[in-house]
Amino acid sequence: MKTIPNLEIPSQMKALVLSKYNTKLQVQEKQVPIPGKGEVLVEIDSSPINPSDLSFIKGNYSTKKALPVVAGFEGSGRVVATGSDFMSRRLLGKSVACFAPTEGNGTWSEYMVTKNRLVIPLKSNMDIEQGAMLMVNPLSVLAMLDIAKKGGHKAIANTAAASTLGKMLNSLCLNRNIPIINIVRREDQAELLKNQGAKYVINSSSDNYADEMKSMFHELKVTLAFDAVAGSLTSDLIGAMPSGGEVMVYGGLSEQPISIHPRRLIFEKKKLSGFWASEWITHQPMLKLLGMFNKIQKHLSKSHQISIQKRISLEEGPEGLLLYQQNMSSGKVLVKPGMG
Amino acid sequence: MKTIPNLEIPSQMKALVLSKYNTKLQVQEKQVPIPGKGEVLVEIDSSPINPSDLSFIKGNYSTKKALPVVAGFEGSGRVVATGSDFMSRRLLGKSVACFAPTEGNGTWSEYMVTKNRLVIPLKSNMDIEQGAMLMVNPLSVLAMLDIAKKGGHKAIANTAAASTLGKMLNSLCLNRNIPIINIVRREDQAELLKNQGAKYVINSSSDNYADEMKSMFHELKVTLAFDAVAGSLTSDLIGAMPSGGEVMVYGGLSEQPISIHPRRLIFEKKKLSGFWASEWITHQPMLKLLGMFNKIQKHLSKSHQISIQKRISLEEGPEGLLLYQQNMSSGKVLVKPGMG
Repeated sequence: MKTIPNLEIPSQMKALVLSKYNTKLQVQEKQVPIPGKGEVLVEIDSSPINPSDLSFIKGNYSTKKALPVVAGFEGSGRVVATGSDFMSRRLLGKSVACFAPTEGNGTWSEYMVTKNRLVIPLKSNMDIEQGAMLMVNPLSVLAMLDIAKKGGHKAIANTAAASTLGKMLNSLCLNRNIPIINIVRREDQAELLKNQGAKYVINSSSDNYADEMKSMFHELKVTLAFDAVAGSLTSDLIGAMPSGGEVMVYGGLSEQPISIHPRRLIFEKKKLSGFWASEWITHQPMLKLLGMFNKIQKHLSKSHQISIQKRISLEEGPEGLLLYQQNMSSGKVLVKPGMG
Repeated sequence: MKTIPNLEIPSQMKALVLSKYNTKLQVQEKQVPIPGKGEVLVEIDSSPINPSDLSFIKGNYSTKKALPVVAGFEGSGRVVATGSDFMSRRLLGKSVACFAPTEGNGTWSEYMVTKNRLVIPLKSNMDIEQGAMLMVNPLSVLAMLDIAKKGGHKAIANTAAASTLGKMLNSLCLNRNIPIINIVRREDQAELLKNQGAKYVINSSSDNYADEMKSMFHELKVTLAFDAVAGSLTSDLIGAMPSGGEVMVYGGLSEQPISIHPRRLIFEKKKLSGFWASEWITHQPMLKLLGMFNKIQKHLSKSHQISIQKRISLEEGPEGLLLYQQNMSSGKVLVKPGMG
């Protein structure tokens, strides 16, 4: 193991642990792990609560980990120790964005060991807190734009558009002159997006929303919609689209199934599919991904800041999860293991 | 207008007319139409009742025609008069399969005018009754195989598999060594298909059908299912498929919507889309379609005969529709305008 000279790494640390799916997380004392070959030890600075964390904790996520396990999928921090291999050693001392290993403990912890390829050095002008949110949302957004471009779609739509992901997607679409219809469910969310320069916003709670959406979708030729909500909203999206339109579902916030009439599929040529960023990434060439991370860092340091509604200690984790779940459009809740 | 020498064409004819959607058809006296440029007059021999006729009469089909109109989409007969242009004149006197024009009167009539490009000369060994069913079902089946091949699917499934289309699809798959799972809802239909050489048949009324389907789909790597039923059967198909599987809905016999859980789309990468033969055809090159019609005629004259459960006169039309609707898997009901 290689370490930063003169830096003392403690042997014990605090971590926020999930012992059983769909139960409350608990702060526990754990041994600081030791990085092996191809691994790095990150002293975590910040880690966001994402929708994927909520479904992982509930036991609804695609992958389950062996329990007990430290929760949290992404974060930022400093590499304070590494395996003795060259690729890992190069990262020693660097500020990085990091992703939790597929198996094993996550980011809501004072220290985390992960693979060196799940770590991206932050550019010097990159804020360490913004850098904690470099992977899940920004990669999803860039993946969405990549899919839209490859499919030849002239305009897109997105639901739950006041979320962190939604705001980022809107910001990047404005940046690239891609018309995007932002669909929200409250008037204050609509205002928030309009204040951020959004051109097209639809409030799904308004009376004539289905008609409004249909005429907007037809006028702008929206043939691809990303949907985080599922349930009746997806059916409405499908109905509003011009012939041949596709809805890609990437979340199920309504916790409802989707109902679709066969005529929509047969005669209107509509399509229903899914989008899952983690899965999408595995099919992309490494160089393309590195290029994407560069774009993300530029965009996040210049044009777009992810808003943070609260910073919490590990001890405040359970309340933080509740707060985020009830207030997703007010900004991210950041877990700061050093705050305790 | 060109006519066959010494053949007298009457000025009046009988036809089965739809005056209002979702009401009973009535036999009416009409003037025999005169073919213009690019058109031919066919003396109809036979015309099947297809599922698309049922939904057209109910007003559920994608296209509605101006009423009153003669019903019937496809048939066979002899070209007895043509417009004076070269392409039409070439067809004079020939036995043909024919399709009704997009606008205007259909095949359930003693005579029908249609475009010369909606007419295919029958090969000399082709039965005139089999030739009446050359377009809707066989083209659907060939389109399905074309889609399966292009998508790189190793094995497919089909529902309502005891239908005329289902039997033909099974027969062609056997012919081409493509594993196909035939899904039916009664034991006698399962027997019928097994007697026709079907290797894999599943009865959706049996107790352990969902498990049986899942293990068969996984074992044979069924990644594409064609579904004519919709409703809960589609959800079961989606559930049974291996990751990445697609269900293409081409009918809604259950008259029920489809319910799908977002996790199927996101984490299991399932897809839901539609298939509509008439629409598919418009995107294919003419040469490819002609090649397909040749293959169909060969297959129908050699390996596979479409079974006919009843031949009816125009006057028996309404009872024929009822009979077919209640007994789709017993074979086709053929309208024979000359029988009256």
